[in-house]
Amino acid sequence: MESVVYLDNAATTAVDERVVKKMLPYFSEKYANPATKWTSSLSKEVDFAVEEARMSVAKIINSEVDEIYFTSGGTEADNTALKGIAFSNMNRGNEIISTPIEHEAVLKSLYALEKFGFEVKFARVDSKGFVDPMEIIKMITRKTILISVMHANNEIGTIEPIREIGMICRERNIYFHTDAVQTVGHLKINVKNDYIDLLSLSGHKFYGPKGIGAIFVRNGVKIQSFMDGGGQEKGVRSGTLNTTGIVGLGEAARIAFEEMEETEEKIKNIRNKLWERIQNEIPKVYLNGPDGETRIANNLSFNIIGIRNEPLLVALNERGIIAGGGSACSAEGKNPSHVLESIGVRKDDIFSVIRISLGKYNKETEIDTIVYNFKEVVKQLREMSPFWTE
Amino acid sequence: MESVVYLDNAATTAVDERVVKKMLPYFSEKYANPATKWTSSLSKEVDFAVEEARMSVAKIINSEVDEIYFTSGGTEADNTALKGIAFSNMNRGNEIISTPIEHEAVLKSLYALEKFGFEVKFARVDSKGFVDPMEIIKMITRKTILISVMHANNEIGTIEPIREIGMICRERNIYFHTDAVQTVGHLKINVKNDYIDLLSLSGHKFYGPKGIGAIFVRNGVKIQSFMDGGGQEKGVRSGTLNTTGIVGLGEAARIAFEEMEETEEKIKNIRNKLWERIQNEIPKVYLNGPDGETRIANNLSFNIIGIRNEPLLVALNERGIIAGGGSACSAEGKNPSHVLESIGVRKDDIFSVIRISLGKYNKETEIDTIVYNFKEVVKQLREMSPFWTE
Repeated sequence: MESVVYLDNAATTAVDERVVKKMLPYFSEKYANPATKWTSSLSKEVDFAVEEARMSVAKIINSEVDEIYFTSGGTEADNTALKGIAFSNMNRGNEIISTPIEHEAVLKSLYALEKFGFEVKFARVDSKGFVDPMEIIKMITRKTILISVMHANNEIGTIEPIREIGMICRERNIYFHTDAVQTVGHLKINVKNDYIDLLSLSGHKFYGPKGIGAIFVRNGVKIQSFMDGGGQEKGVRSGTLNTTGIVGLGEAARIAFEEMEETEEKIKNIRNKLWERIQNEIPKVYLNGPDGETRIANNLSFNIIGIRNEPLLVALNERGIIAGGGSACSAEGKNPSHVLESIGVRKDDIFSVIRISLGKYNKETEIDTIVYNFKEVVKQLREMSPFWTE
Repeated sequence: MESVVYLDNAATTAVDERVVKKMLPYFSEKYANPATKWTSSLSKEVDFAVEEARMSVAKIINSEVDEIYFTSGGTEADNTALKGIAFSNMNRGNEIISTPIEHEAVLKSLYALEKFGFEVKFARVDSKGFVDPMEIIKMITRKTILISVMHANNEIGTIEPIREIGMICRERNIYFHTDAVQTVGHLKINVKNDYIDLLSLSGHKFYGPKGIGAIFVRNGVKIQSFMDGGGQEKGVRSGTLNTTGIVGLGEAARIAFEEMEETEEKIKNIRNKLWERIQNEIPKVYLNGPDGETRIANNLSFNIIGIRNEPLLVALNERGIIAGGGSACSAEGKNPSHVLESIGVRKDDIFSVIRISLGKYNKETEIDTIVYNFKEVVKQLREMSPFWTE
């Protein structure tokens, strides 16, 4: 994968070599199960590494250490947060408010809850993907127990006003969950400042390994367990701890905390230059989502009128450029993106959308290659298209 | 951890170096998300490795390749199987039959289902931990939808008559789940021959990594998803695939398939010699569970009258010997073992139980060290005990 220009970092990132190095001893040397730490010094040592990782994760979102629970990833964190809070608060009410542009791990968890008698209401988003906190206020009733709004959208990069929504929730004693899978490790987030009760994060989105994530649950918030079993993680998440994954997640969090500002500045700079060139050199391309400071640094989502994204991606792939269509998280990616639909992109245009998501291993020198190949391929495809007129 | 005698392989095993080697490229080189395999050759390559792993896992239990779904481990596999089948079959009935000696991932999942109106009945086990299939037949009613019986017990090593139970279920159109976390990779298991509909397995119990497992779901068996989201794994288990973990699990399965007989023969030989020496050289020790072919090869569970296991384990640990008490899977291990209670061990004696679980890295030459140190520590502790008389 070395000579490739990888532009799909919102789908997943390469694991930082420092992370792999930190994980390695925990496979075959320090392999003990931390559950037996009371009687085994080997387990105690592994337990110590787990708690060190927990500290690094807590630090990056400014939570207390004991508010972090490890999960198998962002999807499990979302399932745990939403189902856990819903089933713990059935006696208080059955209404949940969310947005139509959430990740499918949130949406499908909410649909599952509807089968158990919960009522889910979705706040509209505007053409840039923003939720209006005032709209949320209007939707709240005395039966509202939970509001879930993502920190930033994975397809179009919109950063939602979570602090305002957090305030609204805290004032009314409603739980506030945010899916921060796209932002943790990239964008400053402060669970105290933003009045967050529950937050989902995932390791492989910021140069950690796949198969590990975490959920922040504010101290005092009671949550029914989602994964039942041996009672690990104070009963919130059972199952033998994925110690290597946890150590890797911790190291990824430590690195991100230290290098975030510099890395994101660099990425934003490449992104802005790239978008300027694309806009100038390819006719009829249109940005989806906001520009400026309310968009995450690494994301570009745009329509290329007159082409279909699948042949474009395939042709780019042959030239060593890996970009994305809608979202990668949706298993087959064959359905039209619900995010693009929600911000009003015409159904026909949804399949003309390309997502470029940059990462810390991208270089400014790649811009020429990207633009050159995009131009060529778009030109070829447009020439073949019956719908395209210059 | 090198100069240590590790006797807690039922809690977790060291990852085989070959497994680590196979996983390594999938961290920082072949890191792509297999979900985008249609447009990215990098993803396609990773997808290929995932499917290769799936074949290895299928082979070890004699299932079809497309009957294997990857999970974050045994606990998730158990949750998925039990909750998935229960919620998919509410219209057929609400009764589930299981045993009181199941792993907590099964028991706690069943308790969770009770809150949703399911009724769980537990078949008695005898003093060796065996379930009687005839007893199960008597418990079946027209409302029984699911029977879950583990393949082998994690504390006392009892191998259950799952083929007979499988037959009973298949004949009556009841789903049969077996938690085979302790046996897959160690003991031959054949889902076709044993009439199994659902089976749970975990990587870290047979020299694979932690944080990865799988569930076998027989083709034709409909199961409601437990983890909701992007629809990966044909919608049975959403979430970005833990590609490194999956590759590791596949390699562990491949190795186990090839080396199982030899490895288990060696382990059984050490176990038998060790038990003979312990019996002969330490007075008043009593085996829990069966002996002979109905006990898994790596397990020893015995009472040492007059001592408490915690100080014994701590003292052994100081001498470089890591053994276990009841089960390691239960987070803190402070509660008396439900397995030992169920086979009739007196409450006072439960805390005198030691579990030794051997693995492929144990050597026959360790027997002397183990017996010598056990003898010494038991002697010391008994001398201090007010309850002990020679």
